[in-house]
Amino acid sequence: MTKTIYDRRESEARSYCRSFPTSFTTAQGSTLNDAEGNSYIDFLAGCSSLNYGHNDPDMKAALIDHIAGDGIAHALDMHTDAKADFLTAYEEKILKPRGMDYKVMMTGPTGTNAVEAAIKLARKVTGRRNVIAFTNGFHGMTLGSLALTGNSGKRAGAGGAHLGDVTHLPYDGAMGEGVDTLPFIEQMIENGSSGVDAPAAFIFEPVQGEGGLNAASDEWMQGIAKLAKKHGALLIVDDIQAGCGRTGTFFGFERAGIKPDMITQAKSLSGFGLPFAALLIKPEHDIWKPAEHNGTFRGNTHAFVTARVAIEKFWSDKAFEEELAHKATLITTGLQQLADMIPGAKLKGRGLMQGVDVGSGELAGEICARAFEQGLIIETSGAEDEVVKVLAPLTTTDAEFRKGFDILTGAAASILETTKIAAE
Amino acid sequence: MTKTIYDRRESEARSYCRSFPTSFTTAQGSTLNDAEGNSYIDFLAGCSSLNYGHNDPDMKAALIDHIAGDGIAHALDMHTDAKADFLTAYEEKILKPRGMDYKVMMTGPTGTNAVEAAIKLARKVTGRRNVIAFTNGFHGMTLGSLALTGNSGKRAGAGGAHLGDVTHLPYDGAMGEGVDTLPFIEQMIENGSSGVDAPAAFIFEPVQGEGGLNAASDEWMQGIAKLAKKHGALLIVDDIQAGCGRTGTFFGFERAGIKPDMITQAKSLSGFGLPFAALLIKPEHDIWKPAEHNGTFRGNTHAFVTARVAIEKFWSDKAFEEELAHKATLITTGLQQLADMIPGAKLKGRGLMQGVDVGSGELAGEICARAFEQGLIIETSGAEDEVVKVLAPLTTTDAEFRKGFDILTGAAASILETTKIAAE
Amino acid sequence: MTKTIYDRRESEARSYCRSFPTSFTTAQGSTLNDAEGNSYIDFLAGCSSLNYGHNDPDMKAALIDHIAGDGIAHALDMHTDAKADFLTAYEEKILKPRGMDYKVMMTGPTGTNAVEAAIKLARKVTGRRNVIAFTNGFHGMTLGSLALTGNSGKRAGAGGAHLGDVTHLPYDGAMGEGVDTLPFIEQMIENGSSGVDAPAAFIFEPVQGEGGLNAASDEWMQGIAKLAKKHGALLIVDDIQAGCGRTGTFFGFERAGIKPDMITQAKSLSGFGLPFAALLIKPEHDIWKPAEHNGTFRGNTHAFVTARVAIEKFWSDKAFEEELAHKATLITTGLQQLADMIPGAKLKGRGLMQGVDVGSGELAGEICARAFEQGLIIETSGAEDEVVKVLAPLTTTDAEFRKGFDILTGAAASILETTKIAAE
Amino acid sequence: MTKTIYDRRESEARSYCRSFPTSFTTAQGSTLNDAEGNSYIDFLAGCSSLNYGHNDPDMKAALIDHIAGDGIAHALDMHTDAKADFLTAYEEKILKPRGMDYKVMMTGPTGTNAVEAAIKLARKVTGRRNVIAFTNGFHGMTLGSLALTGNSGKRAGAGGAHLGDVTHLPYDGAMGEGVDTLPFIEQMIENGSSGVDAPAAFIFEPVQGEGGLNAASDEWMQGIAKLAKKHGALLIVDDIQAGCGRTGTFFGFERAGIKPDMITQAKSLSGFGLPFAALLIKPEHDIWKPAEHNGTFRGNTHAFVTARVAIEKFWSDKAFEEELAHKATLITTGLQQLADMIPGAKLKGRGLMQGVDVGSGELAGEICARAFEQGLIIETSGAEDEVVKVLAPLTTTDAEFRKGFDILTGAAASILETTKIAAE
Repeated sequence: MTKTIYDRRESEARSYCRSFPTSFTTAQGSTLNDAEGNSYIDFLAGCSSLNYGHNDPDMKAALIDHIAGDGIAHALDMHTDAKADFLTAYEEKILKPRGMDYKVMMTGPTGTNAVEAAIKLARKVTGRRNVIAFTNGFHGMTLGSLALTGNSGKRAGAGGAHLGDVTHLPYDGAMGEGVDTLPFIEQMIENGSSGVDAPAAFIFEPVQGEGGLNAASDEWMQGIAKLAKKHGALLIVDDIQAGCGRTGTFFGFERAGIKPDMITQAKSLSGFGLPFAALLIKPEHDIWKPAEHNGTFRGNTHAFVTARVAIEKFWSDKAFEEELAHKATLITTGLQQLADMIPGAKLKGRGLMQGVDVGSGELAGEICARAFEQGLIIETSGAEDEVVKVLAPLTTTDAEFRKGFDILTGAAASILETTKIAAE
Repeated sequence: MTKTIYDRRESEARSYCRSFPTSFTTAQGSTLNDAEGNSYIDFLAGCSSLNYGHNDPDMKAALIDHIAGDGIAHALDMHTDAKADFLTAYEEKILKPRGMDYKVMMTGPTGTNAVEAAIKLARKVTGRRNVIAFTNGFHGMTLGSLALTGNSGKRAGAGGAHLGDVTHLPYDGAMGEGVDTLPFIEQMIENGSSGVDAPAAFIFEPVQGEGGLNAASDEWMQGIAKLAKKHGALLIVDDIQAGCGRTGTFFGFERAGIKPDMITQAKSLSGFGLPFAALLIKPEHDIWKPAEHNGTFRGNTHAFVTARVAIEKFWSDKAFEEELAHKATLITTGLQQLADMIPGAKLKGRGLMQGVDVGSGELAGEICARAFEQGLIIETSGAEDEVVKVLAPLTTTDAEFRKGFDILTGAAASILETTKIAAE
Repeated sequence: MTKTIYDRRESEARSYCRSFPTSFTTAQGSTLNDAEGNSYIDFLAGCSSLNYGHNDPDMKAALIDHIAGDGIAHALDMHTDAKADFLTAYEEKILKPRGMDYKVMMTGPTGTNAVEAAIKLARKVTGRRNVIAFTNGFHGMTLGSLALTGNSGKRAGAGGAHLGDVTHLPYDGAMGEGVDTLPFIEQMIENGSSGVDAPAAFIFEPVQGEGGLNAASDEWMQGIAKLAKKHGALLIVDDIQAGCGRTGTFFGFERAGIKPDMITQAKSLSGFGLPFAALLIKPEHDIWKPAEHNGTFRGNTHAFVTARVAIEKFWSDKAFEEELAHKATLITTGLQQLADMIPGAKLKGRGLMQGVDVGSGELAGEICARAFEQGLIIETSGAEDEVVKVLAPLTTTDAEFRKGFDILTGAAASILETTKIAAE
Repeated sequence: MTKTIYDRRESEARSYCRSFPTSFTTAQGSTLNDAEGNSYIDFLAGCSSLNYGHNDPDMKAALIDHIAGDGIAHALDMHTDAKADFLTAYEEKILKPRGMDYKVMMTGPTGTNAVEAAIKLARKVTGRRNVIAFTNGFHGMTLGSLALTGNSGKRAGAGGAHLGDVTHLPYDGAMGEGVDTLPFIEQMIENGSSGVDAPAAFIFEPVQGEGGLNAASDEWMQGIAKLAKKHGALLIVDDIQAGCGRTGTFFGFERAGIKPDMITQAKSLSGFGLPFAALLIKPEHDIWKPAEHNGTFRGNTHAFVTARVAIEKFWSDKAFEEELAHKATLITTGLQQLADMIPGAKLKGRGLMQGVDVGSGELAGEICARAFEQGLIIETSGAEDEVVKVLAPLTTTDAEFRKGFDILTGAAASILETTKIAAE
């Protein structure tokens, strides 16, 4: 039995399988199927790693072709036609139309590796050590990224190892609604006696995925960009979860009109859910020596193939962006219905990265568990797991969205009813 | 033109493409082919990530089947049939026959991520911070792993960030032939006033791949295991490069009869060159909380498919191990020929992880460059890149080995001739 | 010649001698005399180390008696009658009347040593590492204290060594008048995902001496005390410069009615300007093992003698405190006159630790230099040295104060006149 | 009662008073007297802080004169006649005769402060962070110095704070008799992949006082000096305990003919047991900015007075050095008698800094306790407190030495007799 092998052999670190206790076998688009013949609508999308849905037919065909033809599977960071084609598509469809000029660094194929590369490079470029990260930020689990991450539970995983060379300051909204955190951040940076050492970089997520779907305003992003520039620090945008269309545009920060010095990408970059990550670097900062940051799997060739197709298919014109705007509205409407059911609940996030803060992690967890029983995969986020978070594939159809929201509000209603009865 | 896109868009961090300046398109077994119709014998094998060669037909078929049937590509760490099948094969073919009892943790799909997880866990388990690593060790590029790594050039990449909580002690042989480093290591650990804090763990590679093909003796590995146990420290074997048959057995440390508390695996674990890594943990140390070390791509489903095939195909009986013993002899013979040509040169390494220290990085580099011109892909390693290193697929045929060594010795001969003429 | 020997032999680190370029020979009360027969009124008082003036006759007599009678000069931390007498006086005159119950730890005879002992102990007691320090705080120059210190110039002296395990948050008033920094501090401590690790301690100065005479309000001190208690952190008050009567009461925090877990004392503790420091520890936190924090000169016996006299002479009743209240008013009046002369200038500080922020370090420096020419020793403080700071002996007579302020305002007037003329 | 006040008010950190439970009142030369009329021969000398004995009459007279005449007691680091006279004497009697050219930095008046200043400066000068310290080294209790210190008990006092930027390597003799540790040290420094970062400095004590009276050979000191120079690291000799004549010459390293880049001094530098410390810096390294390392009590004026007298009285010619050579022999003879009584015991140390390793801390402690009962103050040192250590004033007469050794061997004899009887 499947269950047995996990209990016997898989580490206690495993987590999502605890929320969704079944064995999945196949998937297509926004649907996951399990071994017992059940189908689920996927409102999690691999935590934003499957923005184009499961097994997109065009990527799938290209990948099978590549493998069948003995295309390169692994070549360290040598040149391959697959890599060249990916870079060309990225240049043509992503960088050029946005007037962006960046070097692409294929880091190890995990988001945390791209973040580690970014902060290493920022420190090399500036000769400074301190990096400014933000409350509720999540940047990864390796030591350098973990130091940037806010969550105390994750930080405890370091087992007491030193998480240094980072200063945490309040993200937009962290001090409550209506309180602008920028003046505070400026004060700590500009006062030469604040004890906050001159920063090598500022790093932030345009919308904090793990941190509870906190969305930075354009003014705040612009303010940080300006502050970084003024103080000779680099601006790193961690676009791993918010990028690849998740907030409605390819990059999560486009709306703010800022030009980061570095941008991290991972999750949906391959388009197919394959391990892949990259760091965009302004050419003047690309001072790496060859292999100074290296790794065996940087440049996943299978991912080059699918990523190229994803870019060409979805980002060759403005059609997909327009579709996303429509779907974002749909999500807002759906979630507002949920929020209206729960006193004090409030909408959070932006674009296709929205959720509802239902006030407690317990309630959020119960809603998601009940939804799963009804065929919807959905998860929580936030410091206390208090946010019910929708991260559906961007390609989810209107009908699927409606069905998903029906399950979600139904689940919430039944939980609330039970609670009400219990209270009486 | 291919070249143009790399110059325009790929970061200066790229490296192997500088040694092998062509564009590869397809590969099969031990052969790589480029866009201009040239074929190369591969004595690099993705730095030991392609131990079963390129595009092994059985793995390839299984992977295509999986993709064609809309098998899961990405499911975070949920249960999937592909994962269960992998774990079952691993249990049956790898763990049980060796009398090993370990939990398997799917870390982020990079070696460095498995190392980071290992040291985090060792610190959690012991409540201590200091980790003993060894001279010339290489464990990865993220901050926690980089702190364990010896190479000063790699360390400089940290840009001044703190590489702490680690003590470096001399690896077997590091103080010259005939000098046993164990008494020194013991002294530094056992003297309560040495300034070396009580260690959470010792971490070593059975054979140092990047560090110059230094092979630890059985006695040294046993000595470290005993010392760790005596002082309440965990023993972590980093088997990323030396594992999966590379030294002649599945694990690189089997010959020493030690039982590490944790074992890191990556590189050839997927069998197909796909990003994949795992950490083996003795059950009593598996105290992770769910998601305490997490990551988007832990559990690469495509890799589960190919890894299962690799295990079943190559490790179901002793036949492959016997073959490896034969090939190791073949390599020793081939490299001895090379060594005999160069005064002072000496053989290094073990099993299918051997090389020749030719005395200087310059000469080693020239030999490899000349070999590439003749159709052989081979690289250097060591602190000064002074070792010509053979890391061919384990499945390389005798004929291919002979052809490869002919090219290699021919390249060396022509370099030495040129040098001799220049000197006259 | 005196000058020659300094140039030849004293390190460039020397500083005050640059502002007051003469050679001092004798001193009495609030007067310093130099080798050329000039007398100076002392508004610096060894940076608050000579609160009872120079060579107080009673302390002087007791010290001469002690030395003449072959009293112990140095006994490590053995028991001596001088130590017993000091502790008894401290218990009777300082602790008991204030309802305070503390153990006294004689640390190395420098303020920074007491601070280092305090943070070491707080970390031991709580099992946590992070210490909350504040903007513009100054706590010393050894590595542990320097990490707590805000000033970037001082921090640069570490030469890149790691100044870790500390979080700097905004002191009272640091974000501008009318902005309460407490809510912000609470937010960063209470949000479990802020990235600020649970603190072992909060450490602050009641009035920041070096940081620019910033005085914390009672509410702010109480707020920090409450926050520390709520979060299981210790409260350390660094009373080195603000203590021993400087703000009008023996301890600088008495007015706020808080009960710190630890209190550092140094500077005027000996009463005579002798090196001496102590750490007060609530008995329940005094978990040191013998000699766990040790040092050769902890317990300066000569200082025990003079400190006892100082306590008995000045702190046996309320008379001295009343006198201090009167003098504080006098200083406010005197400084207001100065402030009125300079547009935008404002009074800072509290008690006998007041000054005027004149808007620029250049102007403040010129005023002090001119005052020195007229026989007044006075210095600047603040991040930009922009505050003209009065730290006169507490025993300075009204007449001396008047004379000092006459010189000060005269100096300012002549500087301002010169500037005005230059501008015209 | 004296005892009561200590129990009530003095921190548990107190230590020597536990070994010598009486209250001392006066002292002269090598004799300490307690409140009950007992006299003790002092073989501890304030841990080498009273090299010229207690209350030397000439220093005493000068100090009383200074105080009686209202000489400066405290002047921060302003110029005073007392400081000029000290520097002049130091230049004339100490530096010039030895052909030494150093700047003198008056650090905070503790040894640890001088050490902190030294490593800060070494890091500034070299732009490197790592400092090489040695097994069993003791350099102080503040965070920067504690990181250099080997003893695990002392290190635990940091409460988990980070003790970084230091590499500990084996001191001369640390790997057993006959094993030269220099080749090992060289290997770790010269191998660019050892993981030991390029050092800013090497710091060692010529004889390790706290570490167990381990004396470095001249060849070893020269080897370290050479290695430092070769690798662009500064050489810091921590001469705090071994200096001021303790090993037979003014500096503890003179015999090796090396020229350190920096030398720390404290303990007996004042001559009278007063808190005082200094850092000697080669002029080319004196790149401090004014006050970059500062502190209230740097430059203890009373100590300038006594230190000048000490230098003039003892170091104006070679007579004292000759006397010391004679006394060192006397000590060797006395201790050999003790060693001969205990199987396996062996002599340790050099000059007037010798002791006997009696094999266990328990036995050493019992001997010292029994000796105290008989009127001799003597202490242990070493990682396990296994060394009975003689640190008598250098001015101790032959008769006093004889009497002291009689008590010591008598104490040992009675302990050994008791043990023998108990064992029978």
